[in-house]
Amino acid sequence: VTQTSSSDSPITTTDPTEDPLRFGVGARVTVAVMRDDYAATILRVLDEVDTTGLALETGDVSTWVGGGEADLQRYLTDLVAAVAATGAHASVSVLLSRGCPGEVVCELPGGAGPRTAPIPPARATGARTAAEWALYPLADDVRAGVVPDHMRDIEAAIALARDNGTFRGSAHFVTRLEGDIGDVIATVVGGWLLVGRTVQHVTSHVTLSLNSPTRVG
Amino acid sequence: VTQTSSSDSPITTTDPTEDPLRFGVGARVTVAVMRDDYAATILRVLDEVDTTGLALETGDVSTWVGGGEADLQRYLTDLVAAVAATGAHASVSVLLSRGCPGEVVCELPGGAGPRTAPIPPARATGARTAAEWALYPLADDVRAGVVPDHMRDIEAAIALARDNGTFRGSAHFVTRLEGDIGDVIATVVGGWLLVGRTVQHVTSHVTLSLNSPTRVG
Repeated sequence: VTQTSSSDSPITTTDPTEDPLRFGVGARVTVAVMRDDYAATILRVLDEVDTTGLALETGDVSTWVGGGEADLQRYLTDLVAAVAATGAHASVSVLLSRGCPGEVVCELPGGAGPRTAPIPPARATGARTAAEWALYPLADDVRAGVVPDHMRDIEAAIALARDNGTFRGSAHFVTRLEGDIGDVIATVVGGWLLVGRTVQHVTSHVTLSLNSPTRVG
Repeated sequence: VTQTSSSDSPITTTDPTEDPLRFGVGARVTVAVMRDDYAATILRVLDEVDTTGLALETGDVSTWVGGGEADLQRYLTDLVAAVAATGAHASVSVLLSRGCPGEVVCELPGGAGPRTAPIPPARATGARTAAEWALYPLADDVRAGVVPDHMRDIEAAIALARDNGTFRGSAHFVTRLEGDIGDVIATVVGGWLLVGRTVQHVTSHVTLSLNSPTRVG
C-alpha cells in the first residue's frame, strides 16, 4: 500500500494487514468475580498473566488488549484459566475485533484487508467452561465490493467448533460451547480468524461462565 | 406473506415482521453481582422485575428474553435499575438481536424484513451507569440485495446517543455511554431500532458497569 503524505513526497508504508495494531486486532475483556474480595482477586489474576507482545489499557468497564492473534489467544487462555483457578464463580465477557482500527469511523475503510493469520493451536488448561458465542462478519464500506455472508461464515465457524469438540448446540442468537477453557478460547479465536480470511472487519463476542453452581455435568 | 404448506393448499400467514417472536426480537442478559451473596441477590432482583409481555428462558450463562421492543426496553431498564439498587458492584452484559429467529441458520432469510418499531422513550431511574456499546447491522443473505453499511448505521446511532446526552466518546471497538440507566438503555435500544429500519438483522452488545469503586465523577 502506497500512501502519499504530500503531493511531492510519496512514502511507501508497510501493508496495514501485516501489523496487528494497525489492522485493529484486539480484544476488550470484562472479568466479573462474584465474591466480596473481587477487587483483590482480579488484581492478583491480572498480575499473574503474561502480557508479552500485547498493548493493554484498563478501564472501568473493560480492559482493551491489542496485538497479534496468537498472543491474544495465549493471553485470553491464561487469563480465563487463572480466574477459574481462584475457585470463584465468575463471568468473563470478551469482544474480539479485527479490521477496523480507530474510533467511531474505521481508519481502514474496506479494501485494506483481509488479513490472513494462522489459527493458533489450543493449550489445554485442565479447567472447564460453558460459553455463549456470537460471530459477526461486517460490511463497512459497500463501495469496496466485498460483501460478507453472515450465514456462510457462521456455518464455517460452527464446523470448526465441531472439529474442536466444543460445539454443544445453538440457542437464540448464540452458539453454545463447552469444554476445556483452552479449547473454547481456541474455537472462538479460530472461528474469528477463519471468517477473517475473506472479510476485513470481523468481530466476535463470547461470555464464559466459570465455576457455576448451577452447572450440571 | 403467503406461505404454501403443500402444493394444493396455499395458506396465508401473518407477516413475520408484525410478530416480535417470529421476527426473533429478543435479548440475552448476563447479570454478574460481585458479592458473596450473588445468588440470593440475583434471584431477589429477578423476582422484582415485571416480565409482562415477554418470554423468558434462564440458562447458566445468560437468560434469554423475547418479545416486543418496548417491553424489552422496560424489562432491561427495570432489571438494571434493580441490580444498581442493591448497592453491589455489578456488571450486566446484554446482547440484543432482531431479524434472525431460529438457531444456527436464520429461519427468515433476507427479504422478510425490515421491521419498523417506534423508539420507546426513556424512563429515568435516578441511578447512573457507564457502558460500552457495539452495534452490528448484518448481511445474512447477499442474494436479497439489501446490503448494510456498518459505518453509515453506526454514525446514525451515535447521533442518537448525542441527542440523548449519553455519548461520552469512542474507544477501541466500542462507544462509551454514561448517564441515567434509563437513558443509556434507551440509547442502546433506540440505536438498534434505528438501524433496524433499513437492515433486517441487527444485533447490539452492551456491557454496563454499576456501582463501580473505580468510577470517577
